[in-house]
Amino acid sequence: MTSTASPTTPPQLPIDGARLIERLSALASFGGSVKSGVARESLTPTELAARHWLAAHYATRPGYLVGVDAAANLHIRRLGQYDELPFVMTGSHIDTQPLGGWLDGAFGVMAGLEVFDALDDAGLRTRRSLQVVAWTNEEGSRFSPGLMGSQAYVQPQALAGYLPVCDARGESFGQARDTALHAFDQAADAGGWSCFAPEPAQPVHAYVEAHIEQGPVLEREGLALGIVEAIQGVRWYQVVVPGRCAHAGTTPLVDRDDAQAKAIALAHALLSHAAEAAQAGDDALRVTIGRWACQPDAINTIADRVSFTVDLRHPDAHVRDAFDRLLRRLAPDGSQITLLQDKTTTAFDPALVTLLGEAAERRGLAARRMVSGAFHDAMPLAGHAPTAMLFAPSLRGVSHHPEEHTHSADLVACTQVLADGLLALAEPMR
Amino acid sequence: MTSTASPTTPPQLPIDGARLIERLSALASFGGSVKSGVARESLTPTELAARHWLAAHYATRPGYLVGVDAAANLHIRRLGQYDELPFVMTGSHIDTQPLGGWLDGAFGVMAGLEVFDALDDAGLRTRRSLQVVAWTNEEGSRFSPGLMGSQAYVQPQALAGYLPVCDARGESFGQARDTALHAFDQAADAGGWSCFAPEPAQPVHAYVEAHIEQGPVLEREGLALGIVEAIQGVRWYQVVVPGRCAHAGTTPLVDRDDAQAKAIALAHALLSHAAEAAQAGDDALRVTIGRWACQPDAINTIADRVSFTVDLRHPDAHVRDAFDRLLRRLAPDGSQITLLQDKTTTAFDPALVTLLGEAAERRGLAARRMVSGAFHDAMPLAGHAPTAMLFAPSLRGVSHHPEEHTHSADLVACTQVLADGLLALAEPMR
Repeated sequence: MTSTASPTTPPQLPIDGARLIERLSALASFGGSVKSGVARESLTPTELAARHWLAAHYATRPGYLVGVDAAANLHIRRLGQYDELPFVMTGSHIDTQPLGGWLDGAFGVMAGLEVFDALDDAGLRTRRSLQVVAWTNEEGSRFSPGLMGSQAYVQPQALAGYLPVCDARGESFGQARDTALHAFDQAADAGGWSCFAPEPAQPVHAYVEAHIEQGPVLEREGLALGIVEAIQGVRWYQVVVPGRCAHAGTTPLVDRDDAQAKAIALAHALLSHAAEAAQAGDDALRVTIGRWACQPDAINTIADRVSFTVDLRHPDAHVRDAFDRLLRRLAPDGSQITLLQDKTTTAFDPALVTLLGEAAERRGLAARRMVSGAFHDAMPLAGHAPTAMLFAPSLRGVSHHPEEHTHSADLVACTQVLADGLLALAEPMR
Repeated sequence: MTSTASPTTPPQLPIDGARLIERLSALASFGGSVKSGVARESLTPTELAARHWLAAHYATRPGYLVGVDAAANLHIRRLGQYDELPFVMTGSHIDTQPLGGWLDGAFGVMAGLEVFDALDDAGLRTRRSLQVVAWTNEEGSRFSPGLMGSQAYVQPQALAGYLPVCDARGESFGQARDTALHAFDQAADAGGWSCFAPEPAQPVHAYVEAHIEQGPVLEREGLALGIVEAIQGVRWYQVVVPGRCAHAGTTPLVDRDDAQAKAIALAHALLSHAAEAAQAGDDALRVTIGRWACQPDAINTIADRVSFTVDLRHPDAHVRDAFDRLLRRLAPDGSQITLLQDKTTTAFDPALVTLLGEAAERRGLAARRMVSGAFHDAMPLAGHAPTAMLFAPSLRGVSHHPEEHTHSADLVACTQVLADGLLALAEPMR
């Protein structure tokens, strides 16, 4: 990505905040509401209806094309003057957790579409085409893993591995994908839509994704916007600590091999290590023990097996490595440590991060650079094109829950910076 | 209890060790075997068959009566010269955990019956009657709580509360009890048994129960026998620690209310307290965290609720109280601490303990006084009659498991001391 916007006259594109919130609220009615949360898992009839509602807004408007690719990602393309140039991409996902909030994913898609409407309002053409994508199965709650659509877009050979994956009712991703493609064709025929066939892994000039933070940092610091420069690395461990069953009443401590006591001592040491790092000022080290199970799980029996998980995140691989050594050094003899997942930190494009930061500054917004703690579709995209993200503050950091919320002013401000950034990237025709 | 045995000529009654082991092994065939463990839960067809096999051995022998009481406890009575005197009682239980060992409970019943056979071999009459009891539902694994039969014997009004208790298949204790009484009547009719109707809460001269230790102390100390002078007090707590769900990746440590981290810190402090006491030489304080559950139990979600149990045992109520204060002082704000059970220490009869200790000494056995860590039928009996117990060493402290085992020599030695003790208590006719 190279910015061709003039440094003296950076483009600004006024958006319609009321329209954005109204259309976001309308999207929430597909599967729920703003207040009650949204149940709209990937490729369900509810999600397909929402996709077609989105596509229909643009599919008969001059200068727009709509299409679905082999992973059923929905693309809405606003044609630029030079459609053959690498295009500017934005978007996110509209699938939710089984019962999620109204903003996780949906905001990024609706923010991108609001940019289209703002461009239309302003009668502005761009040199490069712009494309809003609603990625398939970001959440991963219906089909595992998440990020299927964006991963298959940048790495088409991954799709074959996803097609046999089944949901809890036994329907495969391949079947659901076929249903979605067929439903799209029917809707397109019925609506007289202008369509195109999006190819995966096409050259992309830049990818910018707007999303809610899903964490408490921006709210706590009183900021309106996060300019995301990386997605932190994560390791998932499963730790199994062995012991020997014995009677809680008859077995002196000195005779015990208590798996629970050993696991608690290890977990306490790991959490203390993280707490010390936080006290020393490193707020990026995140250690979570989310699962815990013991056997035989009886009140008066000493446990012979405890299993727990560790979710470890830090942007710096050295810090993750140091934690890994600590875990292996402290684990009691006979423990099994399984690395369930190991994702390195995804660094975003520095020039694009700078461009977005300057756009925020010009709008007078209190913003900060930050690292995303959660995964997003921008993670696979970053391996394919210059990529960055914008975060809107999440109230109390809540997401994946009906109480997920962001003040309208913050959603509007984030969309405004997205609009200014996309316009600069797509290069306005003057 | 007053011992009337002459101090100069204490009675000794030689038992037949081979017969004891043979009959114990035969009992194990009801529901399993010595090697594979025994599945013989209370009042199941398997346990009823075993009871009737036991009763049939004595029920047609001159000088014996058999009977069941309202709690279905099986009583086998060897009539003394003066049957109207308070009688001497021994026994234990023959019900097991769903899959238990061959000795827990069964040993005490078979040891008592071996004393009967040894008395018969010696042609000895006693002044007082002797009674072996197989108590109903000691384990409590089928019907909760355990110790139903012995508790109902000493406190008959407790029975009404037990009758509606249902097992996992929905059968009530009352139904199972009725079935057992009916089956006993049928077996007695068919076998022409000499029966009596045991009344609860009759005056008992003394109750002595032989049992395996179910702990590792005797084996570790190289001793043949434990003379049990008390059953230690126990408190069962459930501790619920609250937190707030949040995303493991997006939530800095400083913003977390992590129920798991708080519960681990509390549990670690409690276990460290116990470990320090053990290091300081108090091997009687026993703290076990047997159960642990967290919500939502997801690898990348900070827990909003953790629940764990504490099994606390110590003979000294002051030590239990100090632990209680520590728990309440360290528990995080908002924690719920529920005292599920609070049993004080049960002290056995000092004169009876002395009598058994002297009997062991006369047999040249390496024995020690000790406190039982587990509950036994002797616990309720101790509130009704002079009571004590004898412990045989458990290999590696294992019980409630097919690997539960005790060397035959130790089983024989323990039974020998029981025989000598019971004979002294029942007073041989010379």
